[in-house]
Amino acid sequence: MILIDPLPRTLSLICDDDTTARLRKLGELVVHESNRMPDAMVDEYLPQASILIGQTDLPAERLERAGKLRAVFNVEGNFRPNVDYACCAARGIEVLSVGPAFAQPVAEAALGMAIDLARGITRADRDFRAGREGYELAGNSESFLFSGSTVGLIGFGDLGRAFRPLLAPFRCPVKVYDPWLSDRTIRAHDAEPASLDEVLSSCRVIVVMATVTSDNAGFLGRREFDLIRPGSVFLLMSRAAIVDFPAFLDAVGAGRFRAATDVFPVEPVAADDPVRGIDGLLLSAHRTGGLREAFYEIGRMVVSDAELVLRGLPPQSCKRAHPALAGRQRSMPVEQR
Amino acid sequence: MILIDPLPRTLSLICDDDTTARLRKLGELVVHESNRMPDAMVDEYLPQASILIGQTDLPAERLERAGKLRAVFNVEGNFRPNVDYACCAARGIEVLSVGPAFAQPVAEAALGMAIDLARGITRADRDFRAGREGYELAGNSESFLFSGSTVGLIGFGDLGRAFRPLLAPFRCPVKVYDPWLSDRTIRAHDAEPASLDEVLSSCRVIVVMATVTSDNAGFLGRREFDLIRPGSVFLLMSRAAIVDFPAFLDAVGAGRFRAATDVFPVEPVAADDPVRGIDGLLLSAHRTGGLREAFYEIGRMVVSDAELVLRGLPPQSCKRAHPALAGRQRSMPVEQR
Amino acid sequence: MILIDPLPRTLSLICDDDTTARLRKLGELVVHESNRMPDAMVDEYLPQASILIGQTDLPAERLERAGKLRAVFNVEGNFRPNVDYACCAARGIEVLSVGPAFAQPVAEAALGMAIDLARGITRADRDFRAGREGYELAGNSESFLFSGSTVGLIGFGDLGRAFRPLLAPFRCPVKVYDPWLSDRTIRAHDAEPASLDEVLSSCRVIVVMATVTSDNAGFLGRREFDLIRPGSVFLLMSRAAIVDFPAFLDAVGAGRFRAATDVFPVEPVAADDPVRGIDGLLLSAHRTGGLREAFYEIGRMVVSDAELVLRGLPPQSCKRAHPALAGRQRSMPVEQR
Amino acid sequence: MILIDPLPRTLSLICDDDTTARLRKLGELVVHESNRMPDAMVDEYLPQASILIGQTDLPAERLERAGKLRAVFNVEGNFRPNVDYACCAARGIEVLSVGPAFAQPVAEAALGMAIDLARGITRADRDFRAGREGYELAGNSESFLFSGSTVGLIGFGDLGRAFRPLLAPFRCPVKVYDPWLSDRTIRAHDAEPASLDEVLSSCRVIVVMATVTSDNAGFLGRREFDLIRPGSVFLLMSRAAIVDFPAFLDAVGAGRFRAATDVFPVEPVAADDPVRGIDGLLLSAHRTGGLREAFYEIGRMVVSDAELVLRGLPPQSCKRAHPALAGRQRSMPVEQR
Repeated sequence: MILIDPLPRTLSLICDDDTTARLRKLGELVVHESNRMPDAMVDEYLPQASILIGQTDLPAERLERAGKLRAVFNVEGNFRPNVDYACCAARGIEVLSVGPAFAQPVAEAALGMAIDLARGITRADRDFRAGREGYELAGNSESFLFSGSTVGLIGFGDLGRAFRPLLAPFRCPVKVYDPWLSDRTIRAHDAEPASLDEVLSSCRVIVVMATVTSDNAGFLGRREFDLIRPGSVFLLMSRAAIVDFPAFLDAVGAGRFRAATDVFPVEPVAADDPVRGIDGLLLSAHRTGGLREAFYEIGRMVVSDAELVLRGLPPQSCKRAHPALAGRQRSMPVEQR
Repeated sequence: MILIDPLPRTLSLICDDDTTARLRKLGELVVHESNRMPDAMVDEYLPQASILIGQTDLPAERLERAGKLRAVFNVEGNFRPNVDYACCAARGIEVLSVGPAFAQPVAEAALGMAIDLARGITRADRDFRAGREGYELAGNSESFLFSGSTVGLIGFGDLGRAFRPLLAPFRCPVKVYDPWLSDRTIRAHDAEPASLDEVLSSCRVIVVMATVTSDNAGFLGRREFDLIRPGSVFLLMSRAAIVDFPAFLDAVGAGRFRAATDVFPVEPVAADDPVRGIDGLLLSAHRTGGLREAFYEIGRMVVSDAELVLRGLPPQSCKRAHPALAGRQRSMPVEQR
Repeated sequence: MILIDPLPRTLSLICDDDTTARLRKLGELVVHESNRMPDAMVDEYLPQASILIGQTDLPAERLERAGKLRAVFNVEGNFRPNVDYACCAARGIEVLSVGPAFAQPVAEAALGMAIDLARGITRADRDFRAGREGYELAGNSESFLFSGSTVGLIGFGDLGRAFRPLLAPFRCPVKVYDPWLSDRTIRAHDAEPASLDEVLSSCRVIVVMATVTSDNAGFLGRREFDLIRPGSVFLLMSRAAIVDFPAFLDAVGAGRFRAATDVFPVEPVAADDPVRGIDGLLLSAHRTGGLREAFYEIGRMVVSDAELVLRGLPPQSCKRAHPALAGRQRSMPVEQR
Repeated sequence: MILIDPLPRTLSLICDDDTTARLRKLGELVVHESNRMPDAMVDEYLPQASILIGQTDLPAERLERAGKLRAVFNVEGNFRPNVDYACCAARGIEVLSVGPAFAQPVAEAALGMAIDLARGITRADRDFRAGREGYELAGNSESFLFSGSTVGLIGFGDLGRAFRPLLAPFRCPVKVYDPWLSDRTIRAHDAEPASLDEVLSSCRVIVVMATVTSDNAGFLGRREFDLIRPGSVFLLMSRAAIVDFPAFLDAVGAGRFRAATDVFPVEPVAADDPVRGIDGLLLSAHRTGGLREAFYEIGRMVVSDAELVLRGLPPQSCKRAHPALAGRQRSMPVEQR
């Protein structure tokens, strides 16, 4: 039996027809999509379930009754503290996240936005529509060549690892700040380990791809923005909570550096929010990951790994929760209005 | 003696201090920058010159008096019919273009714009500023994943060869239409040779990088635009004269496909030109090549090749004119207003 | 406290001076190298140890007394059934192997040997010394171009993943047979999933990189060797027990295909073993992995991961044991004479 | 009309059936293969020929009678001084070499031999056959990891450019000494320009890929071999005449460094030549280029370029003679016995 409690997703959002057919072959599907699966329903079916797809609460006492459970698939993308990860590990239950489904879409958008900021693409289009475009060199007073520019990454998880290879043909030196990684790991990805301050003060293109944890909320604030060199560009691709957002907008609004953001402290952004008028800021409404194709990729990852787990093999497509880290992640980055 | 007649460039535009110093070491510099070098001045100095930097007219009768001339560097970037290329070849005079200096800047901008069109980056920024942004999937109704999309190139010279490697990490199948190239040449660059119609009708991302010649003006017209599949994107990166521009704007304006253009039939574009209001068109004012850094690259290429030529070695950085093709090129793509 | 029981390694074999210094910073070292650490010594120190480096037996009852243990590093390279992997998982103890330290040395040797077999390098050297060399085309009657040849991999773990990128510049299509992997995983490494029979019957270059398990001993036998096309080449890089060795030698000796092997059922090979005289077989005495540099790499991996584990972070350089698979591995491939 | 005088090749050696069919479509073929085409025959047909395939002597007075000639294809691979290159240039006749046909076969063999020397593959096979093999670390006392080793190239033409990309996955720093190239050109291929002495004294793997010219015969002699660090390896892939061969054999025989050579001052090598017994020398009988497949590649390159030339387009597959350099090359490196 496969228990499916996919909120905020739905089964049809994440599975195309082929994937659904493969899923059905794995066992009886018990689905509850309209809202979070009621406790009674969870408690009824969990003892029979070998696979759970969803962000259902899983405290130790509930896990004790899940004697056949082999894997839990978080289809939202971030681990949250509502699962007893250590207990899952002790019971041999894999806890898996589909976060990597979004890595490629976000990475390619990040590259597009990085080139956009370096070369002024969106701003030049806006100027052209307003009749104030500059031609050739006159239109490039703030542009710089992206190729060969030093790129600094803050956070180097799935997203950073999808982004790094896209830089290879541009021959950009890459520096990485990620306190969870060893220097060996960073060097194995053709990047140089660096302190946060070094990334901020020495890179022409700075890309934030760090996850939000219980420790790092707002760790990029006024002090850090002051380290960024004039003429550099800054991209916030992961979570708004990582930065002191007002300080960020002040710095960009003052022309300290150009920036792009895909995330905001509260979404949707208020109609009269002044963020909408900042000229040096490329605005993206939390849309770099959420492609139709990325959602279908979630289903393919889940089914592929569920097939493996049911054969006694380790999962390979999804990201495995590490008990020590999964509990520190905060998957509610956005206060929904 | 080195004769320098760089209009429309100036020596300080194309040479940084280091490059100027290297240039001076090669011989006496005779420079005329305010306008085209007067005929009398050319005729006076040409017999002593070993290197000519500029787009000076060089008919056969003038070349006959240039007994020491070893190389001519066209620093504008396109060959024009004002040089007797066959006569230069016969006299062992290299005719060279700095066109490759612009290849990398244009290629990276083309990639940025291609991702922009696939993912809707600039349009989403415009929507956000207007308060009509869509979040996550709702903001991506027309977006597609650039990674893996089939890319078609029309024209595969220096620019195409700088662009192709940037696609490698995206695993995009690449088709090339270029009637001047053998299939072997195209395949050697990891691309599939294709007819024009196949490129137009089967590629999700179509990029025009062809030079303008005496033969191909306006060869992309209504019939060709009708072949493009709805939902594809089209980028005009080289010269406006290659397309039937009104037909192009009609197709984009009607929403047949989204597009970007860096070039226009007349530049600057008139203040009231309706092109400024087409929503599906990413507008760039002939600015993808003209970076400060690209102009300095011109000087470095010229000096590096001049050093080689004066040592009796073949030039390596600039593009050599082929007599049969150089005369067909049309380097005045833009009617200056 | 760090317990070190490294047989068949020694601490000085796997740690250069820098690495030893880093190791000492992590805690008190208790080392026993002359033979396997005696049970009494293990039992005395294990309750205080946070890290165990070695292949010490770890049944459940012993693990129960290892209350501070956070990680076990197998420095031989293969998991063996002498550890209760499920119990370790349940207690949050990482069990790690340094197998990846050998992946790059073996992969580069495998590429060298594959080119050697395709181009006849070693055999041509032997012929030259014997005065029977053929020049140019006459020396290449059995040679084929490695570039572009279809390569088939049997087993795709650490070694396969180190080998695959080396093939990229040769544009070889790659097929992979690995029953532990999903098709997605194989495709993510730019390879095509294939059945064993397809790999054997369609690939010009066949490379065995599979680990030995309780299931696969001798699974490549006469039937499988008969599937290999004449003129193909076969490389046995992982463990001799995977093949029916007499059938393998028969096939190579009969000239069915050329081959290389780095492993033998019993090592050292007997002085009069007829394997020493097979002309079509490239002989390597279990030496593709065992470089001085690879052994030092073991130490660097262990210390780097130990540092992480002691900070509460997941290990990143070593390979984590999967309870379901680790117990199936058989790390004594060679019967020591 | 297409004049074919292919000695030392034959038409069937260089053209498979498809290629021959394409060639026939280009015009009437006049072929003389048994020996060099007699002067009278050349003089009879040359005035009608648009394409000449072969190494026929072409002094200026003969070229004057070749009014329709558009291209000359040297199918041996090296330019020789028997053609008046300046006169061809002046008359708009392309002079082309098929040298690049051998670049990929030689490059892959060079990589195989470089790994062989670093890892001792051939020597270990010889030791194994002699019953004196060492296992694991004991068999690797002189081995070093090829990955990451500094590679130095002496000469960087077609062959070097085919070889360089093969090194990319090994992350080897690459230094190039080539006095015909600008530093820009070398850097554009991800290599560092270096002096000859720096390459010899600082690189672990030294590969000679230089062509022989009137200037460089024997330029690698005792002084140069003394610069090579003990433990480095040296590969002679292009022409024996570049080195002082006795000094080379002395150095290798004395164990100064290990080496490989594909070329010899006189070929075939005498039966009793002591070169056959040098343990540290990997011997290859001028066989790294001469694959059946490489010869067919010659035909494909010629036909593809002939098709282009007859359409008025520049050739793209073959190498164009540069008048200043072609005359300096010496294509008879081997004194045939």
